[in-house]
Amino acid sequence: MPTQLEMAMNTMIRIFHRYSCKEGDRFKLNRGELKLLLQRELTEFLSCQKDPQLVDKIMQDLDANKDNEVDFNEFVVMVAALTVACNDYFIEQLKKKGKKDK
Amino acid sequence: MPTQLEMAMNTMIRIFHRYSCKEGDRFKLNRGELKLLLQRELTEFLSCQKDPQLVDKIMQDLDANKDNEVDFNEFVVMVAALTVACNDYFIEQLKKKGKKDK
Repeated sequence: MPTQLEMAMNTMIRIFHRYSCKEGDRFKLNRGELKLLLQRELTEFLSCQKDPQLVDKIMQDLDANKDNEVDFNEFVVMVAALTVACNDYFIEQLKKKGKKDK
Repeated sequence: MPTQLEMAMNTMIRIFHRYSCKEGDRFKLNRGELKLLLQRELTEFLSCQKDPQLVDKIMQDLDANKDNEVDFNEFVVMVAALTVACNDYFIEQLKKKGKKDK
């Protein structure tokens, strides 16, 4: 029986392949696949973003090897960076709350 | 309602803090906290590892800033690296299966 952390790792793998297999190289996300993944799987994150160039900017940032596709390593780097940003926000809120309670 | 990917990101944050808050700095894992997290949350990964020095080795590898503690960024790098390794294995198996089916 996998643990919650192991299930979270499994989810990252499953979600990536759900979109990467739609067109072209089945192990990489092209621009359309990336856009669909972001819209459907990171809806809360994107709901506060109004920038129409966002998908292009994320593609440029992630695509470390400049092949106009995002491989699994590049995708995991994005998820890790977003998770660190969420955690920073969470800790900031906790520290603010701690100050108020004193 | 968060998506599965957003829940996976939330799990990484929740699991880290469940262990980091036990002793000392509540936002970092010391050696004991890291050992407990690895034993309880990455059981499938650790079940094939017989190296008694494993926790020390992982601590040394993760602890990029050499303060003998693992912060959230360092933890996420570990989870990302393990997930990439799992994905590589998954793709290798898929490709082997593809060859067999031809």
